[in-house]
Amino acid sequence: MNPLSSPLLSDLYQFTMLQSYLEQDMQETAVFELFIRKLPPGRNFMVAAGLEELLDFLENLEFSLEELDWLAPRFHPSFIDYLKQFRFSGDVHAMPEGTLFFPHEPFLRITAPLPQAQLIESRIINLLHFETLIASKAARSVLIAPDKLLVDFGMRRAHGAEAALLAARASYLAGFSGTATVLAGALYDIPLFGTMAHSYIQAHVDESTAFERFAYSNPDNVVLLIDTYDTEAAARKVVTLAPKLAADHININGVRLDSGDLAAHAHNVRHILDQGGLNNTTIFASGNLDEYKLQTLLSAKAPIDGFGIGTALDVSMDAPAFDCAYKLQEYAGKPRRKRSEGKATWPGRKQVYRYYTPDGELSHDIVALVENDPYDGQQLLEPVMLAGQRIHPKRPLHDIRQLTLAGYTRLPKAMSALETATAYPVTISPALQDLAKQLDAEMMSR
Amino acid sequence: MNPLSSPLLSDLYQFTMLQSYLEQDMQETAVFELFIRKLPPGRNFMVAAGLEELLDFLENLEFSLEELDWLAPRFHPSFIDYLKQFRFSGDVHAMPEGTLFFPHEPFLRITAPLPQAQLIESRIINLLHFETLIASKAARSVLIAPDKLLVDFGMRRAHGAEAALLAARASYLAGFSGTATVLAGALYDIPLFGTMAHSYIQAHVDESTAFERFAYSNPDNVVLLIDTYDTEAAARKVVTLAPKLAADHININGVRLDSGDLAAHAHNVRHILDQGGLNNTTIFASGNLDEYKLQTLLSAKAPIDGFGIGTALDVSMDAPAFDCAYKLQEYAGKPRRKRSEGKATWPGRKQVYRYYTPDGELSHDIVALVENDPYDGQQLLEPVMLAGQRIHPKRPLHDIRQLTLAGYTRLPKAMSALETATAYPVTISPALQDLAKQLDAEMMSR
Repeated sequence: MNPLSSPLLSDLYQFTMLQSYLEQDMQETAVFELFIRKLPPGRNFMVAAGLEELLDFLENLEFSLEELDWLAPRFHPSFIDYLKQFRFSGDVHAMPEGTLFFPHEPFLRITAPLPQAQLIESRIINLLHFETLIASKAARSVLIAPDKLLVDFGMRRAHGAEAALLAARASYLAGFSGTATVLAGALYDIPLFGTMAHSYIQAHVDESTAFERFAYSNPDNVVLLIDTYDTEAAARKVVTLAPKLAADHININGVRLDSGDLAAHAHNVRHILDQGGLNNTTIFASGNLDEYKLQTLLSAKAPIDGFGIGTALDVSMDAPAFDCAYKLQEYAGKPRRKRSEGKATWPGRKQVYRYYTPDGELSHDIVALVENDPYDGQQLLEPVMLAGQRIHPKRPLHDIRQLTLAGYTRLPKAMSALETATAYPVTISPALQDLAKQLDAEMMSR
Repeated sequence: MNPLSSPLLSDLYQFTMLQSYLEQDMQETAVFELFIRKLPPGRNFMVAAGLEELLDFLENLEFSLEELDWLAPRFHPSFIDYLKQFRFSGDVHAMPEGTLFFPHEPFLRITAPLPQAQLIESRIINLLHFETLIASKAARSVLIAPDKLLVDFGMRRAHGAEAALLAARASYLAGFSGTATVLAGALYDIPLFGTMAHSYIQAHVDESTAFERFAYSNPDNVVLLIDTYDTEAAARKVVTLAPKLAADHININGVRLDSGDLAAHAHNVRHILDQGGLNNTTIFASGNLDEYKLQTLLSAKAPIDGFGIGTALDVSMDAPAFDCAYKLQEYAGKPRRKRSEGKATWPGRKQVYRYYTPDGELSHDIVALVENDPYDGQQLLEPVMLAGQRIHPKRPLHDIRQLTLAGYTRLPKAMSALETATAYPVTISPALQDLAKQLDAEMMSR
């Protein structure tokens, strides 16, 4: 059983419901949509991400013999027979990865026989929620520090291996420069960055020796960690070492700060390096950073050229989850509506139309029904899979990243800031509102 | 490249440092320890978890041809040759899973040739940090609601698939009753629980039909979701349906509430069920629950028998990460110390000794050097792997769970509460304090 692609990566109730659907032969077409109910605190928009992984999952979804054997004693034989030939044969419409979106807007729509659309719910949310969460977090650092090198340093405190890999992907997609996670570089072709750890310094007899040995071992990427004992003293050791390395044609590309008052140390270190003629040696900072600390450092004009952002990014520290739901909006041609308190949904299959100002900035969106409810805005949901097959080849991650960056240029200024801006206008079309009322009336009359 | 077991699941700097260590033939024994600097907000203790997954990772660590091919253009040929025959041949000492522990206490110690101990750092933290995070969060619900059925419902908003699986494992280990995640049941033999989704209700022509069909399809586990439209009205439909099902020897085991004022609905529904003779039908609640909401519901004497806890558990919502570090404490027989501002470490290889009161409650711990610093308390760190081989067979998860539950009985009352208690006394032995001073003095004199 492959922990990342098994169809058992689902909640038990999906199987229980499936068995019941099949007994009743309820296999007509269902339409489910994925949307968020509200923005996480502090966010002004979300960045759609995770679609390519989801399409991979759907294309390859089948039960292995081992999985069927495990299920067999727990379910009816006829249900197991059904699962033996289970494949996803439905359609997927989605906002392209990198699209900016807002509450109440479906960013994914599944159209498939009910049992299929139901079984995949848990993994759909699991994948899209997480990558969207991280892309939306990463976007904030990119927007306030567009000219800085931003690197994902979060693998160690990400929630497991898949989280680390997807966080590297989602943050790169959102405009980061790269990651330190080697496997993410290998799997997704994301640029890799790295320096050295404190243990490297500690393992040597002294700091200067450690610096020198590292430089000779890695002459093309000499970034020296200078905070193990005394930051400014270490910066002076770097200056002392530089001529010897220069004689061997080795440049000291950068130094890294990882503790203490980063702004103060950066000013001191910049001064020491410049006095020593190392004007081209950059300063890289890390250590419990997030977009708020970045903003403080930028305001203090700290001479820092790049930032490693770890834990706060990979766990989306200030908002480690958001409220999203995958809901049945239509079954057997009939719109459906959930009315639970505080959790009601907009029924029917829907499209999101986007409008821009004459200057090309985001103006407003309209959520409308797909049929008989026409608008002329940009249609954000596109077909990406039909009858279980991807329509387009997998989109290169670099291209998605360009799309995201282009999207940022259309954000009104207030929405690019860390502070909460006025909510972006998302309107529910009159026809959709009427449909909801009509369904409520039908329900009351039963 | 297996995303969960690849040796590329590491930070780039580990490889860069390794290459340099090998050039310098720095392959003497290193001792690294994993510890936390401080408790997450609101926590009174941590629950160690994740060790078995780590030992699996270490036992199987090797580079595939594909991985070596990917590395080859990026590193020296002699380094690639070294990686070809790379295996973990070191020792692992650890607190058994389920052990309660505190800041400054090493809960894992790696003793291995420096390059080996270094390469595995990123995945060690990645695995142990996350499972310990979730076990420590889950423990809080278990302690305040020891007589309730507690089920992990968090897969969909866990950070990827591995996080969902490890969260199911860690919460069960910490005393939860089970999980809804099917694959976690299959892989770890964790009891599975599940009911139905709103979509099941919505897909049927009406709620009563949905209830009836579900009961006939799943006669052994009839738990009906009653909040899709109107909770109390649905409870009355359940009562109406009961005699028909009873005639076919089907019991309605429970109902589930998922929205609104859970305490008020539970009181109303309990009354409706009891009036209808369904005294044995339990009430299960879910919907954005965490230990604080549990406490509120328990205080309100809400007649709820079990709780599904999802997002807040699987992402450890109030503390999605904690400050832990894997630090070099000894190399080539010599203790090492990092002194970075706010991040200094206690040097040398250490043991944690635990003392109990005459009543068997936790009294205090002492962190001391392994050699020449004897104490008579319970030694918390045990050897679990020697020369790269597990000492014991994999411990069954049920046994670990029993160990955790036994550990809770030794907690002083204040530490079992959700509120922050007085910090548990952890003392650094005088010999260890002397060693730190001595290393600082040596450093200053250089």
